[in-house]
Amino acid sequence: MPSNKTSSTIAAPTKFVQAGSERYAYRRFGSGTKLPLLCLQHFTGTLDNWDPAVTDSLAESTELILFDNAGVGRSSGAVPNTVAGMATHALAFLDGLGLTMCDVLGFSLGGMVAQQMALERPSIFRRMILVGTAPRGGEDIMHLDKPSLAKHLQNPALKGYAVLQKIFFAPAESSQAAGAAFVERLMRRSEDREPVSAPAVAQAQMAAFREWEQVSGERFSDLKKIRHPILVVQGVFDEMIPVSNSYWLSAHLPNAVLLTYPDSGHGSLFQFHDSFSRQATAFLASDSESAPY
Amino acid sequence: MPSNKTSSTIAAPTKFVQAGSERYAYRRFGSGTKLPLLCLQHFTGTLDNWDPAVTDSLAESTELILFDNAGVGRSSGAVPNTVAGMATHALAFLDGLGLTMCDVLGFSLGGMVAQQMALERPSIFRRMILVGTAPRGGEDIMHLDKPSLAKHLQNPALKGYAVLQKIFFAPAESSQAAGAAFVERLMRRSEDREPVSAPAVAQAQMAAFREWEQVSGERFSDLKKIRHPILVVQGVFDEMIPVSNSYWLSAHLPNAVLLTYPDSGHGSLFQFHDSFSRQATAFLASDSESAPY
Repeated sequence: MPSNKTSSTIAAPTKFVQAGSERYAYRRFGSGTKLPLLCLQHFTGTLDNWDPAVTDSLAESTELILFDNAGVGRSSGAVPNTVAGMATHALAFLDGLGLTMCDVLGFSLGGMVAQQMALERPSIFRRMILVGTAPRGGEDIMHLDKPSLAKHLQNPALKGYAVLQKIFFAPAESSQAAGAAFVERLMRRSEDREPVSAPAVAQAQMAAFREWEQVSGERFSDLKKIRHPILVVQGVFDEMIPVSNSYWLSAHLPNAVLLTYPDSGHGSLFQFHDSFSRQATAFLASDSESAPY
Repeated sequence: MPSNKTSSTIAAPTKFVQAGSERYAYRRFGSGTKLPLLCLQHFTGTLDNWDPAVTDSLAESTELILFDNAGVGRSSGAVPNTVAGMATHALAFLDGLGLTMCDVLGFSLGGMVAQQMALERPSIFRRMILVGTAPRGGEDIMHLDKPSLAKHLQNPALKGYAVLQKIFFAPAESSQAAGAAFVERLMRRSEDREPVSAPAVAQAQMAAFREWEQVSGERFSDLKKIRHPILVVQGVFDEMIPVSNSYWLSAHLPNAVLLTYPDSGHGSLFQFHDSFSRQATAFLASDSESAPY
């Protein structure tokens, strides 16, 4: 059982595990009676990009494992340019920890990696939470050059996390205020912080998004093979990965519940952190083979 | 406080209230610390069409008011051929009971009536639950002549509630089994049952669906005016009112959470009655002005 001091997003020390040819960075905190929850991060995000309001709430009843995929943060290796390559690393990491089964929270890119892991090794997951993500062959996935995103990403006045407030949250005042609070929470961790992702990380991950958009065979047919109980979550004004992708996920996955949030974009789980944590906790607490909770 | 004997879907006596020129039939049972929950019924449905597995669960923490609109069941008057006409009757009924504010659960046609009531008299509702329904200008609303529905509705071997099992549930064995259990539950009430709706009821309600499909002005613009906290629920395989209608509702209503269920059709709330009752109860328990719960 972790001590109180280290049982939080802000205080948990960064740890490392050697697995195969790589040394992976991770943080592990919280405790619960169910399986640990593997947390797979978004585009260019590191261990520092998990919102304490979400992960500390989840950690009250679940052991969390935050993970830097290869080449991200302080994990060694090169960032793969396919989701499949990232899934291979995440599975190697779990093997390195000696975990044969866990739950997973995959956000954005992390949700794609989680789907790929479930396809390759179904037994690795019990229950899955997919937030702000898309199926293979989804639409309009992370096209950062479109005007609604480019105007923020190319604005030199928006430095560091300030750009996240713009691109993860909806334009409404209420959503922007939630974004500002989110950014403040991300800054609360003052020691043992991660290096910011270099342009090469973004470049490889963008290549992975482009490959993930490709349809191979019947569109969405892979989803039928993922029979885990799944909770799909998205904000209705997500500009980075439109909510239509979550409609497809929940309509084609055979065992998925969809939850959408109003007035929110890509960071809906951070904007509605109380609700999301409550719903995710209830979903993970279920022992049913059926997703509805 | 109702006694235990009458505090259930099966046992609650049918009551009547005179309001304006009509005498409306209703049942009232359960108790809670919040406002009563007005339950607005589906196409041709009467007081007897509420699933005890849902309404008895809700009644554990909420006072329920099941309502027969004009011309349905034992309510007097003619069935209006517009949703607006039905909303006028439902508001008159609440006036007759002396209720100035309540929560609402509108299922299918009932969800359209609830939207119209919220537009006409916003103060009448605190929180709203809209299940298996559609916005004005929605698509493919109750086209009973399409093959997937007509094959059941025109099958002479399917009598009484047996047709509901086919048209409210998905074709999968799991959903059909849930449908059979639903039909069994509907039959548990043995006394004080309602007359089955006559063809004239269906005819007027179908006219109301056709009118509701018409767009007036900018499509979905009315939804922006309904600012209540709303929970939208639908099954992803709904053939009677496709789930796309709930996508529109939740994306255009400014303050709505969407919950969709897998492996289920129009009767998703009955198929997943444990989950639906839990989610609806949690939603209604919230005092927030924001829908996420």
